[in-house]
Amino acid sequence: MEIFGIEVDLSNLINIGLKIGLLILAFIIFIPIGKKIIERTINRAGSNQKISESRVKTLEKLLVNLFSYVMIFVFIVMLFAIFAIPIGPLLAGAGVVGLAIGFGAQGLVSDVVTGFFLLLERQVEVDDYITAGGYDGIVEELGLRTTKIRSFNGTLNFIPNREIIGVANHSRGNMRALVDIGISYDENIDEAISLLEKVCAEFQQDERFKDGPNPIGVQGLGSSDVVLRVVGQTENGEQFGCQRDMLKRIKEAFDEANIEIPFPHQVNIQKG
Amino acid sequence: MEIFGIEVDLSNLINIGLKIGLLILAFIIFIPIGKKIIERTINRAGSNQKISESRVKTLEKLLVNLFSYVMIFVFIVMLFAIFAIPIGPLLAGAGVVGLAIGFGAQGLVSDVVTGFFLLLERQVEVDDYITAGGYDGIVEELGLRTTKIRSFNGTLNFIPNREIIGVANHSRGNMRALVDIGISYDENIDEAISLLEKVCAEFQQDERFKDGPNPIGVQGLGSSDVVLRVVGQTENGEQFGCQRDMLKRIKEAFDEANIEIPFPHQVNIQKG
Amino acid sequence: MEIFGIEVDLSNLINIGLKIGLLILAFIIFIPIGKKIIERTINRAGSNQKISESRVKTLEKLLVNLFSYVMIFVFIVMLFAIFAIPIGPLLAGAGVVGLAIGFGAQGLVSDVVTGFFLLLERQVEVDDYITAGGYDGIVEELGLRTTKIRSFNGTLNFIPNREIIGVANHSRGNMRALVDIGISYDENIDEAISLLEKVCAEFQQDERFKDGPNPIGVQGLGSSDVVLRVVGQTENGEQFGCQRDMLKRIKEAFDEANIEIPFPHQVNIQKG
Amino acid sequence: MEIFGIEVDLSNLINIGLKIGLLILAFIIFIPIGKKIIERTINRAGSNQKISESRVKTLEKLLVNLFSYVMIFVFIVMLFAIFAIPIGPLLAGAGVVGLAIGFGAQGLVSDVVTGFFLLLERQVEVDDYITAGGYDGIVEELGLRTTKIRSFNGTLNFIPNREIIGVANHSRGNMRALVDIGISYDENIDEAISLLEKVCAEFQQDERFKDGPNPIGVQGLGSSDVVLRVVGQTENGEQFGCQRDMLKRIKEAFDEANIEIPFPHQVNIQKG
Amino acid sequence: MEIFGIEVDLSNLINIGLKIGLLILAFIIFIPIGKKIIERTINRAGSNQKISESRVKTLEKLLVNLFSYVMIFVFIVMLFAIFAIPIGPLLAGAGVVGLAIGFGAQGLVSDVVTGFFLLLERQVEVDDYITAGGYDGIVEELGLRTTKIRSFNGTLNFIPNREIIGVANHSRGNMRALVDIGISYDENIDEAISLLEKVCAEFQQDERFKDGPNPIGVQGLGSSDVVLRVVGQTENGEQFGCQRDMLKRIKEAFDEANIEIPFPHQVNIQKG
Amino acid sequence: MEIFGIEVDLSNLINIGLKIGLLILAFIIFIPIGKKIIERTINRAGSNQKISESRVKTLEKLLVNLFSYVMIFVFIVMLFAIFAIPIGPLLAGAGVVGLAIGFGAQGLVSDVVTGFFLLLERQVEVDDYITAGGYDGIVEELGLRTTKIRSFNGTLNFIPNREIIGVANHSRGNMRALVDIGISYDENIDEAISLLEKVCAEFQQDERFKDGPNPIGVQGLGSSDVVLRVVGQTENGEQFGCQRDMLKRIKEAFDEANIEIPFPHQVNIQKG
Amino acid sequence: MEIFGIEVDLSNLINIGLKIGLLILAFIIFIPIGKKIIERTINRAGSNQKISESRVKTLEKLLVNLFSYVMIFVFIVMLFAIFAIPIGPLLAGAGVVGLAIGFGAQGLVSDVVTGFFLLLERQVEVDDYITAGGYDGIVEELGLRTTKIRSFNGTLNFIPNREIIGVANHSRGNMRALVDIGISYDENIDEAISLLEKVCAEFQQDERFKDGPNPIGVQGLGSSDVVLRVVGQTENGEQFGCQRDMLKRIKEAFDEANIEIPFPHQVNIQKG
Repeated sequence: MEIFGIEVDLSNLINIGLKIGLLILAFIIFIPIGKKIIERTINRAGSNQKISESRVKTLEKLLVNLFSYVMIFVFIVMLFAIFAIPIGPLLAGAGVVGLAIGFGAQGLVSDVVTGFFLLLERQVEVDDYITAGGYDGIVEELGLRTTKIRSFNGTLNFIPNREIIGVANHSRGNMRALVDIGISYDENIDEAISLLEKVCAEFQQDERFKDGPNPIGVQGLGSSDVVLRVVGQTENGEQFGCQRDMLKRIKEAFDEANIEIPFPHQVNIQKG
Repeated sequence: MEIFGIEVDLSNLINIGLKIGLLILAFIIFIPIGKKIIERTINRAGSNQKISESRVKTLEKLLVNLFSYVMIFVFIVMLFAIFAIPIGPLLAGAGVVGLAIGFGAQGLVSDVVTGFFLLLERQVEVDDYITAGGYDGIVEELGLRTTKIRSFNGTLNFIPNREIIGVANHSRGNMRALVDIGISYDENIDEAISLLEKVCAEFQQDERFKDGPNPIGVQGLGSSDVVLRVVGQTENGEQFGCQRDMLKRIKEAFDEANIEIPFPHQVNIQKG
Repeated sequence: MEIFGIEVDLSNLINIGLKIGLLILAFIIFIPIGKKIIERTINRAGSNQKISESRVKTLEKLLVNLFSYVMIFVFIVMLFAIFAIPIGPLLAGAGVVGLAIGFGAQGLVSDVVTGFFLLLERQVEVDDYITAGGYDGIVEELGLRTTKIRSFNGTLNFIPNREIIGVANHSRGNMRALVDIGISYDENIDEAISLLEKVCAEFQQDERFKDGPNPIGVQGLGSSDVVLRVVGQTENGEQFGCQRDMLKRIKEAFDEANIEIPFPHQVNIQKG
Repeated sequence: MEIFGIEVDLSNLINIGLKIGLLILAFIIFIPIGKKIIERTINRAGSNQKISESRVKTLEKLLVNLFSYVMIFVFIVMLFAIFAIPIGPLLAGAGVVGLAIGFGAQGLVSDVVTGFFLLLERQVEVDDYITAGGYDGIVEELGLRTTKIRSFNGTLNFIPNREIIGVANHSRGNMRALVDIGISYDENIDEAISLLEKVCAEFQQDERFKDGPNPIGVQGLGSSDVVLRVVGQTENGEQFGCQRDMLKRIKEAFDEANIEIPFPHQVNIQKG
Repeated sequence: MEIFGIEVDLSNLINIGLKIGLLILAFIIFIPIGKKIIERTINRAGSNQKISESRVKTLEKLLVNLFSYVMIFVFIVMLFAIFAIPIGPLLAGAGVVGLAIGFGAQGLVSDVVTGFFLLLERQVEVDDYITAGGYDGIVEELGLRTTKIRSFNGTLNFIPNREIIGVANHSRGNMRALVDIGISYDENIDEAISLLEKVCAEFQQDERFKDGPNPIGVQGLGSSDVVLRVVGQTENGEQFGCQRDMLKRIKEAFDEANIEIPFPHQVNIQKG
Repeated sequence: MEIFGIEVDLSNLINIGLKIGLLILAFIIFIPIGKKIIERTINRAGSNQKISESRVKTLEKLLVNLFSYVMIFVFIVMLFAIFAIPIGPLLAGAGVVGLAIGFGAQGLVSDVVTGFFLLLERQVEVDDYITAGGYDGIVEELGLRTTKIRSFNGTLNFIPNREIIGVANHSRGNMRALVDIGISYDENIDEAISLLEKVCAEFQQDERFKDGPNPIGVQGLGSSDVVLRVVGQTENGEQFGCQRDMLKRIKEAFDEANIEIPFPHQVNIQKG
Repeated sequence: MEIFGIEVDLSNLINIGLKIGLLILAFIIFIPIGKKIIERTINRAGSNQKISESRVKTLEKLLVNLFSYVMIFVFIVMLFAIFAIPIGPLLAGAGVVGLAIGFGAQGLVSDVVTGFFLLLERQVEVDDYITAGGYDGIVEELGLRTTKIRSFNGTLNFIPNREIIGVANHSRGNMRALVDIGISYDENIDEAISLLEKVCAEFQQDERFKDGPNPIGVQGLGSSDVVLRVVGQTENGEQFGCQRDMLKRIKEAFDEANIEIPFPHQVNIQKG
């Protein structure tokens, strides 16, 4: 049978249809089994060898992800085999189309190359709090092509790995708590600092603080106030809570000691 | 017959004209039937297997879209067949024109590659509220080449998929409601926070809240006010309504308790 | 005859001159006829099949545009034929010049590819109000290479299609009318909202409104005012007029009810 | 004779010298004649066929420009012919140098391609007032490679055509005149608008106005004033003068009617 | 003699050394002579044919610059000849290194191509005051690769020509002098304009002014003043001096006529 | 056995499995030993030859890093050998895939090339305080592909070396301490400078200062104050502490001497 | 012996080890000697021929730098020779790897090309104060690949030469000193200028001034002051000191003559 110059063979069509059916069936059965096996193996290995839980989760998510891509690739190759299309020359023959595909697909390759090193160099793990590619939040899943980050406001961000140019990982090691507090130009600096030292002494008992906090001196002479700075090291993730507690405590201590935290000042000269 | 060096054969022309007519006719009949079939199959499959409605819509829109592109491609190939132009060497032969086309068309390939992964990795579904490529709104249609987003102000945005570098999907999971409220430097912080806790207790009964809301402490010492922060988790899509209700309730509670929400302050020193 | 190493044949020159003359004549006669035929065919087809007028205009402009480019191409090919220069190898032979041309002309190919999809996917029609490529206005003409947009201030903008990265089409569906209004911290919020509801009830009769308008609550606590928001859906193109009318009506209603729309506030503390 | 491994032939040198001399002489004589012929032909054709003067100027400038580039090209080719260097293979042979030249020269090709379409699509004519490539002013000359724009402050700007990504042409059709005027919150809006209508009625007699001007209502509620907008269509080029006249007339009308154009307002609360 | 697998021939080494010595000697003698000849020829030609001095300077600087590059190229080619390295295949053979060099050197080619057109189209001459590539000042030297600009603050800027994307040349034709002056809302606009006309009449006698200056009306209604604009055309280079003189004269005239140039205004409403 | 057209040989599979097992085992044993050896060798060499500790750390981190990459490469090559896939032609054969990989992987090559020169030119050492690629902090590890920087706030940043375009190394040589202090317009400048000189004399005793500090005069006339500048050179890392101490000391000295550090000034003219 | 399919020959290994040892030894001895020779030769040549010291330093640093790169290249070539790997075909054979390397290494080539011209055109010398590539400071070393700039605050910046797009060299010729001073609107402009002329006359005696300083008139009418400008030319490097001295002297002169330097002004209108 010929339709507009293209020869069509019916029995061949049925044959191909059957093969495709079998192929799809095989995959529908095989894929969920494969995923289960990966998950169990990783979990057992993790609990046996005392690997940190977040590392286990990272590996599990990654392997499942990798497994999916390999399955898609195998599926496409088999499909081509069923249609008896030689895939090698197709990929190697660079013409106009090849050029366009080559250029268009370079983003994909960049994604995978970057993703590979993100994982290899352990720059990011699931549950880390990171800033990358203009997004900011908790890592939910690490893939070879895409990284999923859950923002503080609840949004789920999908970032192609190639966009992750530099990673700022906020979950590695102690974090700094910093409070800048302005006092009036009329106050005695030494008195204010000794008061800050007393407040800091209280916080140094706090388990969340790994180092300090300590007042480090006059940070600047503002237009209306003398700015004093207090700096400390806290456990990872506790820095914001610590800063909030310090702000409250310092404000109250200054109120008690009658040290003024000044409003903006302006000198008015009356004329006319 | 020869016109300016190009040989023209009349009977051949008529023959070609007839073939083109038949081809167009075939397509005019075939395309709407094809689309109907796709829509029905998807809808029946969806209702049988309890797939979420938005996923069904996404698949339907996508398959119709894909079907159109395949039909256009088939049409062009058949047109070339009618004119007996071998299409293979044409595409493979890279010369000046090929180079230009290859470069010029890479955007198209990038669109399709990105679109394919947007769908495969389920980054976006029809009716999701997303931010992508500088646009912000509800997804109306997901195509292999273009994504349509309806902005909040009613504008319909068409975005080539390659421009969708990272996707911020605001329709996945609970969202955060956040209220920052400033109180006067003269107020007692503990009192204000206990008042906020009372207000929050009311909202914790609210079904829309999944977690909280709770006051988390002193966020900062502003130039004229002490800023307190209240944070909670709400059902997806309810965060803005919740914030509006909290703002109103907190303002009224502070009014009742005579806690001042201060205007900007300035200290004036008279001179001359 | 030889001039600086290049052989020149007089009789040949005359022959070529004649041919060029004939060619130009043929085109001068043929082109306006062709354009007329296109316009009439489209118009008749349009009125027969009840296609919207803006779609007819778009198609007409496009086909005339396409016709012009095809004519220019045919003209150049015939010119080459007269001079007996084989155009195929010229285009295929990629050397230094080819490389430069290939790179330099990729912009042109990008224009046409993008233009083709702008039309195919009906992203834009003549007379739509769009924002694209940094320009903003009414579409006057859609070409394969360039889109003409008439700005609100009267400027006519020519945009190469490749610069149209994303299209924001403001002429598809209802538009939102939004009014933010600030009231004094001393006013009762519930009273102000019930007043807004009364005003909105009047507008809900207005034919231009498709949905609402309705006050949706406290949008924010500003430094000097409590901001209330009113939102509605209007017919396409009526949103700005509606907003202006709502602003006027709300202002007058607040004046009547003695609800203050406050000026910026500042607390002054006298010192010295 | 041999100098450092390069064979030199004296009689040949003299021969070449003579040829170059003749070549230069020929060009010195020929070029100004060619330019004169172009100018006269264009001017005569222009006055015969009633083409607008600015179009004649554009064509004249362009053809002289094109003629110069063709002459330079012919000159270089002849020079190569004198030295008996085969120019074809030179250009085709792409090696390291070819690659560098191909990349480096793509800007030139882009310039010419863009310039060609700027002219073909009549985006710009000499004496148009345009904004393009970050510059803004009156077009003085349109070339295949460069466009010259005279800024309002007298500067002459040279812009390579490839930098002209989008053209905003301010000399095509009527332009809008727009005046925003703020009135006090205490004024009656209807009174102010009826006054604006009276002022606008005067201007509607003005020949420069093609449509309007008319007050269109309350544009916004500013922090200290209610903003009213007046819009009209003027003849091209008259928009700025019209706006200046309207500003003056409206200000005077408001003064006469005792409608206040308010200064910034602030509410001061004295404390302490 | 063999050192780590590389065969070394002593007599050959001495031979090569001698040749290099001779070559360097020849260049040390030849280059300054060549430069002198160029300078004298240009100067004599310039004074004979009444070419403007700045054009002569431009040509001289350029030819010396070109001469230097040609000499460097000849030197390198001869060096290769001495070592008997065939330079042709070296340049043509594109491998990894060739690719890298080709890409890396494209900037150089862009520089020369742009430089060539900067000169050919006389966009810039030595001593012009231009803005280009983010720099701003007087052109000191124009080269094929680099342009030197002396900034107003004395800095000497070296700009690769490829960075000169558009040139704003401030030394071609008359320049505009513009003064915006604010008067109080209480002043009579007509009086102020007639006073400005008197002041302008004085300046119209000034030789530096080619056209105007003239008051053109109310430019805007500022938050505290009515802004009037005065515009004129001055000789090139005199615009800044003229503006300074006009500012002084207008300020004094307004003082004499008791027209107020107002300070920023604010309306204060006392509360509480 | 054949599965969907791909021939599978069981005994071969087992054979391959065994080989892979052995290979993994060999690597698990070999890699930690290799790392230990590197660390010890470097440390011993460092202590013998009195190389600075930070240089030793840099070399150690680098060599371990390099060793890991070499091991990964060897592992992959061996894996290919086990499967008997010839790796050479695979890498050399550039088709569509090759093109995409070549483009996608260029980032990797850029990383290594840049990393190599960062190390070779000793631009950065472990423990240096640097600003690079938009990040700012202490270098924790230098790799061929990635540099790890610990920010002041505790965040660990991973930067691909190609992003490190310019390095600002703050740990090389003395640093400047700079204090700008504003005095009232009513104060005597000479008095204030002589007071600053007295304060500076105290600090010149300070061991942390390598040069100065000295007052260098009037830096500017601010809108409300006369700004004086004090500049000195301190030991590396001590600049911030020194600045804080100077700020405190100068503020106290000015208080004692009754020299006013003024608040912002404004002249108010009462009207109406 | 065979390890995982790779044949290993022990005696060969020892042989290679020995050769490498010898090679390293040769380089350890040879490199410091080579550097010494270069330094001495340059220094002697410099002192003999009265070349400026900074030029001598530049050349010395450059040649040592160049010598190092040549040595590294020779070392790598010899290493390849020892392993008997033919380096030519390796570099020429462009496959996937070649493509990646070619693209990745183009930055390196750009560095060297730019560096070469920076030196050849003497754009920068050691000890010049320049602004380039976003950095600003004194040049410490000029290399073929990298330029080292010492910032004013002590930081040492390493800039790859390709990033040095334009160089602003502040060490070539006299620099401008500029002071803008605001006087009250009530002051007589002529008086203030004649006072400035007196102050400038004092500075004209100052050796550091090459031209001026002179008051050039009214630069602008500010919102609260009339701005006068004083401009002069100073010796290179003295401009900042001169400006500071002028600021101090002018402020004192205005104080003596009772000319007011005004604070910001505001007109207050009391309402309500």
